[in-house]
Amino acid sequence: MLLLHLSDVDEASWAEKLRAALAPYPVVRQSDAFDPKDIRYIFVWKPKPGAFDGLTNLKAILSLGAGVDALLKHPRLPDVPVVRFVDEDLSQRMSDYVVAHVTMHQRLYSRFRAAQLARRWDQLYPPAASQTAVGIMGMGVLGQDAVKRLKPQGFTLRSWSRTPKAIEGVEGFAGTEQFDAFLAGTDILVNLLPLTPETTGILNYETFAKLRRGGLHGGPVIINAARGGHQREADIVRALGDGTLGAASLDVFETEPLPQENPLWAIENCYITPHIAAISSETAGVAYYAGIIAAHEAGKPLINVVDRTRGY
Amino acid sequence: MLLLHLSDVDEASWAEKLRAALAPYPVVRQSDAFDPKDIRYIFVWKPKPGAFDGLTNLKAILSLGAGVDALLKHPRLPDVPVVRFVDEDLSQRMSDYVVAHVTMHQRLYSRFRAAQLARRWDQLYPPAASQTAVGIMGMGVLGQDAVKRLKPQGFTLRSWSRTPKAIEGVEGFAGTEQFDAFLAGTDILVNLLPLTPETTGILNYETFAKLRRGGLHGGPVIINAARGGHQREADIVRALGDGTLGAASLDVFETEPLPQENPLWAIENCYITPHIAAISSETAGVAYYAGIIAAHEAGKPLINVVDRTRGY
Repeated sequence: MLLLHLSDVDEASWAEKLRAALAPYPVVRQSDAFDPKDIRYIFVWKPKPGAFDGLTNLKAILSLGAGVDALLKHPRLPDVPVVRFVDEDLSQRMSDYVVAHVTMHQRLYSRFRAAQLARRWDQLYPPAASQTAVGIMGMGVLGQDAVKRLKPQGFTLRSWSRTPKAIEGVEGFAGTEQFDAFLAGTDILVNLLPLTPETTGILNYETFAKLRRGGLHGGPVIINAARGGHQREADIVRALGDGTLGAASLDVFETEPLPQENPLWAIENCYITPHIAAISSETAGVAYYAGIIAAHEAGKPLINVVDRTRGY
Repeated sequence: MLLLHLSDVDEASWAEKLRAALAPYPVVRQSDAFDPKDIRYIFVWKPKPGAFDGLTNLKAILSLGAGVDALLKHPRLPDVPVVRFVDEDLSQRMSDYVVAHVTMHQRLYSRFRAAQLARRWDQLYPPAASQTAVGIMGMGVLGQDAVKRLKPQGFTLRSWSRTPKAIEGVEGFAGTEQFDAFLAGTDILVNLLPLTPETTGILNYETFAKLRRGGLHGGPVIINAARGGHQREADIVRALGDGTLGAASLDVFETEPLPQENPLWAIENCYITPHIAAISSETAGVAYYAGIIAAHEAGKPLINVVDRTRGY
């Protein structure tokens, strides 16, 4: 039996679609009557403290989110495999966001907008994409998809990841010892890392100060599409103010929704979106998890299981 | 002998580089002493009224610009082949501009900027690129390069050209009789047409009103990276004001520099750049025209010759 425990999303809609996809396999919701001992799978989003209580026969926890950092902090998380959502549609949308913001900054959007507000016809030819180095932090599914989408645009690509990753056409850097060298040649820094204790606060003033200067008119740029916990917002405010950063595109924040009084809202060259870079689609989620449950019930191993020591 | 007649650009720098590339073939500038009868080629940008006078042995006119609409209107243009500049670097920069603005609008930039100014955390998930139809007018070198760059992003692509062009992965429309059908399925309209009597003013209110509605949040969008003569600016102001258009990205204008009093400057969702989408690079231009002169002097035919009846 599959139990749905989804907060802040339309659980009824997911239930209807998962029932249709899994029938005759039983699917129940939190509000339904069921015996907790019958639950073999729980599909979760923002689980409440008691979400897993009494589920003594649980075989796997299925996460609606691609990122599992919050889920892994659940105080009563049972010791069963956690499956994360790997979603091509989500990757496409995330890369849509990344390409839109990388190209916007490469074409010096902030500079031309300021000229327009002053009604100033002031010609400046942006560099070709090939002259701009985009450094991507995180070379998982999302990072590799971003590479696939940025490469045909002609950008010079660099990557940084925990362990070395050899990707054609990308200059790869790995580990803390190569972090500074990675930053030193990067004009536009894109964060797609998982949030772990090691990556928390990695987008800080010290990091920004190490980015390449002189490559991009107005200064280097950061784009954070991963987690608010990666960034130190006070440092971003400072770096945008003193020119250490030329611009920032932020889809995620230390506190969400971003509080009214946060100074980032009012910074001209800070581009805020309300955590909408990418969302897991119901259609893709239903197909993905129905497939995983059917395969596992047929005796096959689970896929995309989170490594809890690594954190993703 | 090659004569340089370049206004508003660094003619001395071009002369130095063309001399180095063509030596021992002679290269002269307007200010040099030379016999007009010795001139076999003239390399022009914004030629003055008397530019071609006395050049009785001229074999070809070489245009620095990719667009030749202004050149073809020269009142004393000799009846010799006009070669236009086909430049991969220029195509790359033009596509950089096109991709940056297409993706910006596809990601609902105007909508999120307005929310930011109001400090409003208001989630809305943009469609995937595949759900957005980009219609490109003009399938020459620039249009085809834009296709090559937009296709890996996953956009649904449509094209419109004078004569039918079969390009893989692009739904092609041609001629006036298919123009309305082309517009009816287009969310983001990109203009890369040559400026001819037939295409003058093609970006007008009637055209805008025929674009697909409901595909893109806020309304359809136009992007003009070709010539100011293609657009009716009064119609753009009206269409942005009444919601017929959701946004416009304009790199070119009816009068350039765009006059201070032009209302487009002050429209929030009109994105103005000062005719900087793409420029011909000196390096590429020298290599291109040195090659063309050497080949022609060796008895080979000229390439990329303008069809004067067609206008490009």
